[in-house]
Amino acid sequence: MAAGSIDILGIGNAIVDVVATADDDFLVREKLNKGGMTLIDEPRAQQLYGSMGAGTVISGGSAANTIVGVASFGLSSAFIGKVKADETGAAFTHDIRAMKVRFETPHAKDGPSTARCLVLVTPDGERTMNTYLGACQNLTPADVDENLVRSAGITYLEGYLWDPPEAKKAFVKAAEVAHAAGNKVALTLSDAFCVDRYRAEFLDLIRSRTVDIIFANQHELRSLYETADFDTAVSALREEGILAAVTRSELGSLVVSREQTYAVPAYPIEKLVDTTGAGDLYAAGFLSGLARGASLEDCARLGALAASEIIQHYGARPVVRLSDLASQNGLSY
Amino acid sequence: MAAGSIDILGIGNAIVDVVATADDDFLVREKLNKGGMTLIDEPRAQQLYGSMGAGTVISGGSAANTIVGVASFGLSSAFIGKVKADETGAAFTHDIRAMKVRFETPHAKDGPSTARCLVLVTPDGERTMNTYLGACQNLTPADVDENLVRSAGITYLEGYLWDPPEAKKAFVKAAEVAHAAGNKVALTLSDAFCVDRYRAEFLDLIRSRTVDIIFANQHELRSLYETADFDTAVSALREEGILAAVTRSELGSLVVSREQTYAVPAYPIEKLVDTTGAGDLYAAGFLSGLARGASLEDCARLGALAASEIIQHYGARPVVRLSDLASQNGLSY
Repeated sequence: MAAGSIDILGIGNAIVDVVATADDDFLVREKLNKGGMTLIDEPRAQQLYGSMGAGTVISGGSAANTIVGVASFGLSSAFIGKVKADETGAAFTHDIRAMKVRFETPHAKDGPSTARCLVLVTPDGERTMNTYLGACQNLTPADVDENLVRSAGITYLEGYLWDPPEAKKAFVKAAEVAHAAGNKVALTLSDAFCVDRYRAEFLDLIRSRTVDIIFANQHELRSLYETADFDTAVSALREEGILAAVTRSELGSLVVSREQTYAVPAYPIEKLVDTTGAGDLYAAGFLSGLARGASLEDCARLGALAASEIIQHYGARPVVRLSDLASQNGLSY
Repeated sequence: MAAGSIDILGIGNAIVDVVATADDDFLVREKLNKGGMTLIDEPRAQQLYGSMGAGTVISGGSAANTIVGVASFGLSSAFIGKVKADETGAAFTHDIRAMKVRFETPHAKDGPSTARCLVLVTPDGERTMNTYLGACQNLTPADVDENLVRSAGITYLEGYLWDPPEAKKAFVKAAEVAHAAGNKVALTLSDAFCVDRYRAEFLDLIRSRTVDIIFANQHELRSLYETADFDTAVSALREEGILAAVTRSELGSLVVSREQTYAVPAYPIEKLVDTTGAGDLYAAGFLSGLARGASLEDCARLGALAASEIIQHYGARPVVRLSDLASQNGLSY
């Protein structure tokens, strides 16, 4: 009906990041999974927060970062995710609305506090994430505004939604409503450990065509097909016959469909500061191009450009207007 | 008695900064005092927060920033200031303790929330601060731990303490206890508008020798002596006969005493990002040198070095260890 009145809707865990620098010894001492995302409970979150350095607090959440990126590219966007009515939830809400993203999911009045991700950034720019899901566990199918999903050209979902049990149901409902309205559904595999937790279900989402578009990095893709060989994983992905974008850090990205594979290089950067949000912002650029009917290669270029911006500063939200950055780099969409 | 068991104690408003970029049009539209610090009440804080962009939350507070800088130079330090027992207060407490600063001031259980400063950074790197004092208004003389003051070689106080009425009394008590123990007392004039509010009182603090050391920037100094001419202001300052450090942005700083005036250049920088904390960190370097018995010129060099670090990133807390930075630049103290 009103398809396209919003370009892209994201549904994901609504999280605020607490970013601190740390050395590798700290990761070893705290037994942290370098480069990965580990779920932690509240006591562990308190203990780890107590032992880590001074933190910079920046709104985060994987799909939320992507949607803010989409808004920064100048597209219309909305987000569904659950925060609590606490100070951290208010900050998340302010920050996403300040980017003109529609965000109306009711705040939880009680229960666990707004989710926090303790992000430790090592001197090599790698980020190690430790997430206390908190209020995200209260995202339910009732939070999925069907009219909003119907109005969105693309609904973008994060694999992390498989972690809170009720959110998984919200995910499936959103995909059904989107498809019934003739819209597209995209999924990011989120994290290699996340793929490890839900491999069979993620493959089923792809093969049942619950999702139309897949985002993955090389580690996630290899985990999905349980192979150490990247090319083998790409071949398996090609056989699925859906559109996929696979990111490979400084090696750029591949756009994979049954018919064709495009390799697009990464944008050069001056200095790698913090890789947090690289995949999220790649998805933002790619989806923005897709929603505007750009070529798949330009979609990948827009993704690479947004990723190059985000890894040159702390935090996973852009500090410049991505639409300006795109035009400075001669990319139209 | 135990003088010197802590190198430097800071007393100031305990504030968390919410940093956002803004263009000059926004400042005009919101009638903000560019480059200055304006006190705002809670409704105005909510309105301004609602209209500003996405914020990065970083612990701040002028004297608190200085004390964190002192700790980063490797000296022992403590801080007295008032937060509420809320999420923002917990973040402030975590961040200052993570730097190994002793911070034991009891948190307010009720009353106004932890203070927030809405910092708007314009493309020229200038910061415009809007402070809701909140819980800082509950800092009283009872919060001044006399043993702590006695144990500190230098007690450093911010002029901003003159804003919350009870805090002023805490300031005077701390200065008396410090002097009775044979320790030094330093004051930063904080802000030209602050000097304007309390000129007579600040001059009295100097002339009554309630303070021994003064930090000021050129605007504050001109405001103190109500002159547009910098040299006239410096002459007036010299006549006071106390030790003073006057910062002049890219023109470096002057160390002024009755006997001598030293001019020390600023350190070169690659890119000016955000001037927030420049004065605070200059004081950190200067005081660290002074506490360790460095020459006055080296004190000013240490201050300039710390200021150069802080203005090249967002926020007023150092992102590298200042003791490392000092040794890389051949400065010993």
